[in-house]
Amino acid sequence: MSEADWLDQVNWSREGLVPAIAQDRDSGRVLTLAWMNREALASTIAEGRAVYWSRSRRRLWRKGEESGHVQWVETVRLDCDRDTVLLSVRQEGGIACHTGRESCFYLQLQDGAWREVDPVIKDPERIYKRDK
Amino acid sequence: MSEADWLDQVNWSREGLVPAIAQDRDSGRVLTLAWMNREALASTIAEGRAVYWSRSRRRLWRKGEESGHVQWVETVRLDCDRDTVLLSVRQEGGIACHTGRESCFYLQLQDGAWREVDPVIKDPERIYKRDK
Repeated sequence: MSEADWLDQVNWSREGLVPAIAQDRDSGRVLTLAWMNREALASTIAEGRAVYWSRSRRRLWRKGEESGHVQWVETVRLDCDRDTVLLSVRQEGGIACHTGRESCFYLQLQDGAWREVDPVIKDPERIYKRDK
Repeated sequence: MSEADWLDQVNWSREGLVPAIAQDRDSGRVLTLAWMNREALASTIAEGRAVYWSRSRRRLWRKGEESGHVQWVETVRLDCDRDTVLLSVRQEGGIACHTGRESCFYLQLQDGAWREVDPVIKDPERIYKRDK
């Protein structure tokens, strides 16, 4: 079966995208929601790591390419409408969020306000520092 | 704090929507991805059950209104970009999918094809049958 078949069976939006949820295979936590186009999903399978489409930068984005926080992909699922992807991942560093937290979903609604309920594991300045 | 504040802090898309992921609080499984507009999220909080915006029917959709498979909401989280919602839910009947499966994500990519890897718990004809 050619690669085109399973990629064709995804219900891409008019913009050619689907949302992709990454779930930690160990903690079970939902880590991120990002977007994939056809090339991103094909690359994810080919490389075994999460590759997304950055809508703001309009380019492929290999998760962890700057931070080192790669999402190694164990399984890829599709939902009944074939328009959402679910990745089971091994999260490099145990940190998915650019704020240095395990998960991007660290805000919880409590008493009518969004509260930060998860700890910062690593200071973002240490994650993203570059050799000058 | 008025209701408007926390609703205003969500980054609604140009269409006024955000994706909402429902995760089973017991099994940890990702059950569904659906969409919410402002009214759907406000109703979810007010009613303690998942209320989505059906993009195809263009109306509010109280999950389980036909099937009985209500998603009772325990916590509501928001991600760092404030444009995706994560619900921790107690899934009535243990079935979230209209196909009678626990989760909508029952297709897994294996050897270049999407395979049905989860069992049907209840025949959809029995879920949706109506008194005539």
